[in-house]
Amino acid sequence: MKTTEQTTEEIRNGVNVTALRETIEAVKSDPELADFKFRASNAWEDGSRNLATVRDFHGTKADHMHKDELHVRMDEPPVLLGQDTGLNPVEVLLSALSGCMTTTLAYYSANLGLELESVKSEYEGDIDLKGFLGIDPNIRKGYKEIRVKFRVKGNATEEQVMDIVRCSPVFDAISNPVPIKIEIVKE
Amino acid sequence: MKTTEQTTEEIRNGVNVTALRETIEAVKSDPELADFKFRASNAWEDGSRNLATVRDFHGTKADHMHKDELHVRMDEPPVLLGQDTGLNPVEVLLSALSGCMTTTLAYYSANLGLELESVKSEYEGDIDLKGFLGIDPNIRKGYKEIRVKFRVKGNATEEQVMDIVRCSPVFDAISNPVPIKIEIVKE
Repeated sequence: MKTTEQTTEEIRNGVNVTALRETIEAVKSDPELADFKFRASNAWEDGSRNLATVRDFHGTKADHMHKDELHVRMDEPPVLLGQDTGLNPVEVLLSALSGCMTTTLAYYSANLGLELESVKSEYEGDIDLKGFLGIDPNIRKGYKEIRVKFRVKGNATEEQVMDIVRCSPVFDAISNPVPIKIEIVKE
Repeated sequence: MKTTEQTTEEIRNGVNVTALRETIEAVKSDPELADFKFRASNAWEDGSRNLATVRDFHGTKADHMHKDELHVRMDEPPVLLGQDTGLNPVEVLLSALSGCMTTTLAYYSANLGLELESVKSEYEGDIDLKGFLGIDPNIRKGYKEIRVKFRVKGNATEEQVMDIVRCSPVFDAISNPVPIKIEIVKE
């Protein structure tokens, strides 16, 4: 007697764990699938105002278009001589860190069989503007330190959450050096 | 005969250079004015979806509210098991870099008397997902390298633009290590 085979997808924390594990197996058998290139462009408007646009990326040996063009509008608040029409870039950096640590927690927890009920987090970073303003060349221009606080409901222990969020790609990119190559074209 | 004294503000590249120089002088006489703390929070929604919110920051010895709450909506594209309703966090990181290098160019050029006509830039970063997916512990989880291309119209030389954009705080934060302290609270 034939039995009907049913495909059941395991969904945990809103993450398709079946697809995640299939992805891991696919990459193991064809490592080139894992080479991703993410892209953004930026157009300066005036003063502190500019707009970042994200359209496409490369991965799984193909270029992919986002469903819609995605934007981040940036500006500075009045105390930093802007008009406050958008996030400032160092706030966008904290936002990137927040999104990445959160998604990493959701994906890794799902794969480990840990259930999350709610995840909230707070970020604060210190910048001494004497660096950027050129007043003291010994003061760095970027963040001196960033502090992160996660509030998690679910069955993961504090130690598990700590180990997982440190696997975030943006956490890596900020806490360790990334080489940045710059080309300037005069038009 | 009395002459009417007129206050003329020097505006260049949309930047109030008079106010910028006053800020530099104010900080020189009271360095504590330069201590800024930028903040963000994040709420996980489900799977790859989460929302970063920026409300306030500290600087010039006071807390400041943004005019409006500012948000970055994040998600992953389908090939990374999301629904593509927002930028993914590593794209937000490139956006932060783009905004910061651009604003740095506008502000520093204004202060140096250089006129910008147009500034566009492109960003591409490489991530080998074998790191994040836990397939190879020797592969880093974040960007291996980021490439930046600026297209600038104006009277700054290529060398001047190169020197200036490397003063960006986010450029510093990504190309050099930033200590990140994490606290986990189970609720």
